[in-house]
Amino acid sequence: MGSDSDLSVMSAAAKILDQLQVSYEMTIISAHRTPDRFMDYVRSAKERGIKVIIAGAGGAAHLPGMAAALTVLPVIGVPIMTKALGGVDSLYSMVQMPSGIPVATVAINGAKNAGILAAKIIAVGDEALTKRLEDFSKEQAEGVNKKAEKLENIGYAKYLEQM
Amino acid sequence: MGSDSDLSVMSAAAKILDQLQVSYEMTIISAHRTPDRFMDYVRSAKERGIKVIIAGAGGAAHLPGMAAALTVLPVIGVPIMTKALGGVDSLYSMVQMPSGIPVATVAINGAKNAGILAAKIIAVGDEALTKRLEDFSKEQAEGVNKKAEKLENIGYAKYLEQM
Amino acid sequence: MGSDSDLSVMSAAAKILDQLQVSYEMTIISAHRTPDRFMDYVRSAKERGIKVIIAGAGGAAHLPGMAAALTVLPVIGVPIMTKALGGVDSLYSMVQMPSGIPVATVAINGAKNAGILAAKIIAVGDEALTKRLEDFSKEQAEGVNKKAEKLENIGYAKYLEQM
Amino acid sequence: MGSDSDLSVMSAAAKILDQLQVSYEMTIISAHRTPDRFMDYVRSAKERGIKVIIAGAGGAAHLPGMAAALTVLPVIGVPIMTKALGGVDSLYSMVQMPSGIPVATVAINGAKNAGILAAKIIAVGDEALTKRLEDFSKEQAEGVNKKAEKLENIGYAKYLEQM
Amino acid sequence: MGSDSDLSVMSAAAKILDQLQVSYEMTIISAHRTPDRFMDYVRSAKERGIKVIIAGAGGAAHLPGMAAALTVLPVIGVPIMTKALGGVDSLYSMVQMPSGIPVATVAINGAKNAGILAAKIIAVGDEALTKRLEDFSKEQAEGVNKKAEKLENIGYAKYLEQM
Amino acid sequence: MGSDSDLSVMSAAAKILDQLQVSYEMTIISAHRTPDRFMDYVRSAKERGIKVIIAGAGGAAHLPGMAAALTVLPVIGVPIMTKALGGVDSLYSMVQMPSGIPVATVAINGAKNAGILAAKIIAVGDEALTKRLEDFSKEQAEGVNKKAEKLENIGYAKYLEQM
Amino acid sequence: MGSDSDLSVMSAAAKILDQLQVSYEMTIISAHRTPDRFMDYVRSAKERGIKVIIAGAGGAAHLPGMAAALTVLPVIGVPIMTKALGGVDSLYSMVQMPSGIPVATVAINGAKNAGILAAKIIAVGDEALTKRLEDFSKEQAEGVNKKAEKLENIGYAKYLEQM
Amino acid sequence: MGSDSDLSVMSAAAKILDQLQVSYEMTIISAHRTPDRFMDYVRSAKERGIKVIIAGAGGAAHLPGMAAALTVLPVIGVPIMTKALGGVDSLYSMVQMPSGIPVATVAINGAKNAGILAAKIIAVGDEALTKRLEDFSKEQAEGVNKKAEKLENIGYAKYLEQM
Repeated sequence: MGSDSDLSVMSAAAKILDQLQVSYEMTIISAHRTPDRFMDYVRSAKERGIKVIIAGAGGAAHLPGMAAALTVLPVIGVPIMTKALGGVDSLYSMVQMPSGIPVATVAINGAKNAGILAAKIIAVGDEALTKRLEDFSKEQAEGVNKKAEKLENIGYAKYLEQM
Repeated sequence: MGSDSDLSVMSAAAKILDQLQVSYEMTIISAHRTPDRFMDYVRSAKERGIKVIIAGAGGAAHLPGMAAALTVLPVIGVPIMTKALGGVDSLYSMVQMPSGIPVATVAINGAKNAGILAAKIIAVGDEALTKRLEDFSKEQAEGVNKKAEKLENIGYAKYLEQM
Repeated sequence: MGSDSDLSVMSAAAKILDQLQVSYEMTIISAHRTPDRFMDYVRSAKERGIKVIIAGAGGAAHLPGMAAALTVLPVIGVPIMTKALGGVDSLYSMVQMPSGIPVATVAINGAKNAGILAAKIIAVGDEALTKRLEDFSKEQAEGVNKKAEKLENIGYAKYLEQM
Repeated sequence: MGSDSDLSVMSAAAKILDQLQVSYEMTIISAHRTPDRFMDYVRSAKERGIKVIIAGAGGAAHLPGMAAALTVLPVIGVPIMTKALGGVDSLYSMVQMPSGIPVATVAINGAKNAGILAAKIIAVGDEALTKRLEDFSKEQAEGVNKKAEKLENIGYAKYLEQM
Repeated sequence: MGSDSDLSVMSAAAKILDQLQVSYEMTIISAHRTPDRFMDYVRSAKERGIKVIIAGAGGAAHLPGMAAALTVLPVIGVPIMTKALGGVDSLYSMVQMPSGIPVATVAINGAKNAGILAAKIIAVGDEALTKRLEDFSKEQAEGVNKKAEKLENIGYAKYLEQM
Repeated sequence: MGSDSDLSVMSAAAKILDQLQVSYEMTIISAHRTPDRFMDYVRSAKERGIKVIIAGAGGAAHLPGMAAALTVLPVIGVPIMTKALGGVDSLYSMVQMPSGIPVATVAINGAKNAGILAAKIIAVGDEALTKRLEDFSKEQAEGVNKKAEKLENIGYAKYLEQM
Repeated sequence: MGSDSDLSVMSAAAKILDQLQVSYEMTIISAHRTPDRFMDYVRSAKERGIKVIIAGAGGAAHLPGMAAALTVLPVIGVPIMTKALGGVDSLYSMVQMPSGIPVATVAINGAKNAGILAAKIIAVGDEALTKRLEDFSKEQAEGVNKKAEKLENIGYAKYLEQM
Repeated sequence: MGSDSDLSVMSAAAKILDQLQVSYEMTIISAHRTPDRFMDYVRSAKERGIKVIIAGAGGAAHLPGMAAALTVLPVIGVPIMTKALGGVDSLYSMVQMPSGIPVATVAINGAKNAGILAAKIIAVGDEALTKRLEDFSKEQAEGVNKKAEKLENIGYAKYLEQM
């Protein structure tokens, strides 16, 4: 991420990767403020064994697009919500990349989904991770079903009280 | 894709995959109009050897999101431009996926980038494809440099005339 | 609805249906997280005697559109307000449905109106419900008129103090 | 509809109602320019045997909302595309109705879907129409499948040529 | 205004009219919930000596547009800010009126400006009010100049402390 | 207006004023390019007998707002449609005026409505013009009714052919 | 700036100019409320030795555009965030200036960047200031690098706790 | 600029610089496709005697922001209009730069204004250029005045015919 102000959002990617047992490194690096370290970091990522890059940024968010320009690795972009424009600025700055340089963009503040998407990409060549993702998917379904059961049992009024 | 009206856009994904020598299958399938065939198709994709799914759709574009809900494979969404809203509707319907179900969204009408992103994902475990992507990247740079040289040689007025 | 986080909004539909003496069932079900239960639920709705489906969802909101694809029953969509985009994402994901699969979309967070619309649809073949809707309409008018009278009597300054 | 400039869009509702064998009446009436005829027309609709009202309008589109205020019948709104704002103005003027007065809003220029939605509403109490809607749904699926087959047979290049 | 929830905004129009010594009547009336009283009220306004109508409404805001359709008097619309869309819905529902039925639209929540605009309209035939408006204008200028002087004297740091 | 490129839109205001027999003067003047002539023009308008100012401009459209700052006369703003943003830029630059300086804003490209609004303002003190506006209103209603009759007589298919 | 309500934002420009040792004057002046003082102020700026003007304003923000029309000096515009529209209105009112009258627009509430941009402009002819800007740039990079080091050392969980 | 598809827009900057007798160099360079040449180009610009950089780009437009990160020179950004989003994507990607790295953004497709702004910046230290800019400004005013005179002489109907 480009600034530690994005950490509270981006940490959700780390959490889900921990849960899915996918190892990662996490740093603060800015395409604008530390361009040289940024270029070295991205260009050496593949050699360091990195398989996917997740980049979160807000406003005129160039971090994921510039990363995608510098490496053959797939780059996932997380548009950070902004105070004035809600994150539409961040979203457009990532998703509307010119032809030749794709960024795999997820929802505004969608860092958890960025982590899952990274895991899905790595799982293409990793059956054990595939299995863990399938289990995660089942747990999600069970979570919904439990809530449905509860709602049907106690009714919406009591359910709302207990939230 | 959900309709053959999207084919003129989506064929750009096929073309770049051909160029990068990545094999693929291409069909028209609708989450809304052919829900059963759609579910079977997505659920059996991994078994058929598919590694990545690219789904293009316009308007209230549910195709990639529903696909992502039904498979562990990474799903790339291409928001198709729409007449009334320019494709913002397609974009929001894809990129703003709820937590747990990511769609890797590219630019409006960005089918070529969807193909490149799919190739980058597959290349994570494929050195030969990595090499072809790096070559593609170099060709892109050379294309820009040639145009720059031409512009510097003949000036913008003549350049514009020759376009 | 797709998640219990939407319950505080969606419960307004239940309340007005209670008030209009229209019976209903209410559950949490997700097109993305519980696709199989979702398909069974929607496809069996008509046989269970359901006449109208109300579906509320936020972000890339596929619930009402996918429901509309799976049943001949009319489906009403309630776009849930979202933090980043205010609910424009939810609205576009519902209202911009492709030709052949309509969703009757109401206002962002308009769950009460969804309940009234459902009642209006059922009332097409139910004179007693029609009468209750007409009474509801008169009560609304009286409520406005009482406020108008109060404002004219005490003036805006006192009225504001008493709010 | 409020103006004959909307007729080329709104006629799609008439066509699908013809196809589904649902009878209807169609007129040009303006909440702004002919307010008295408009009020009489809407208020007498139920007595004339009308079950659903479809209203199409563009810009500051008050027609469906004012109709919904004057009748217990369900009202479907079709936001007409506008030159300057693409129809977002029409959409917001319909869908964002205040509490108590719902308009069942469909897509911008979605007159065909308005017709289908009207048919779905009437079909709640009409098994023969339900059957025709189910057949329509199957035909839609077959249409998609035929195109899919064609695409798989001849490839995208030839398919595009034949479009 | 259509609802007493708009009163805290709309009272600013009353306040400035009081200050400019322009007499007015103020009520709550809804084009949707009390259509008959609304029509009578607007149609009889000119006879009652009303010269300008100010109408404030939010969301699918039909109040000023419907008023403009029913009277030859100039109608000023105040778009009320909304939670989900910030008031863009209210604004578009007023300003984008079809040809023939203008609404003089002011800023979102711009009730004070609506009052001033009403006064400017009445002042076209009223020299004493013209004079009061010119005085109001001078006071505004003096207010700015005093603040400027203060800022230049004490500097921004102290000025901010004293706010 | 600020530029002769706006003339094809703004001439609609002149036409309707001609039709309503309201005299006017029309010129090209720019707050940006001819600030001194602009200030003289606006400040002397009232003395020259002008009662209302109509100002049309596009993009960062400062003409009506600056005019409103310089005169006690009511100022009507016409936001001109723009190629990139459809005229939302023009609209926001006019309608969102700060407290104290209202601009009576009409629809994007709504020059005809600006003319009618100006006439309505002048008619506040002019019974003959009031009568002409009422006649104009009746003609509008008759125009709609004739079209309605035609549509009911010949059906939508033939009507569309004859358009 | 046009109002002291903008001071808490605009003071960031003053702070960074202090830090960069660039002298400035700061005042409250309104193109709308104090047009004469405004014109005198801007027209005499160059003679008073001013090299760049920074103007911040919100809503229909005419201050920087009108300033740019009145002086040959470069004018920087700061769009102030607004409650209803987030500052898109302020942004469009500045950035979409007509041909011939540019405003150098920075981010919504971007007063600090306005100060830096002013410094960069003055630095074109000032080597000492250039040096200070380069130092500022290095400090920014070091700030990012320290945070990165900290994050790598203590991990995201502890980092978040310490924020 | 990043691509020769932007040349027809960006050439307007060259033209006005020619007219104002400001020398310049013009090239095609991409932050994404030619990152190394881009970095060298921007970093060496000041040494080559460049005083201001103008960068035009469309979509997720990183060119001006990345340039601003790499040089102490002022950077002007021209957001290029895009087919899907009209250029709002380009605008947000430039104007919403993070604190510390300003881009002086002009209107969508505002390349002529970018040229004038560059000239205004250079003119801060160049009296002869200041004089040429003042003359340019006078010519602009005369152009408007001539059109005004023509319109007043021949009326709008004839004026429109001659356009």
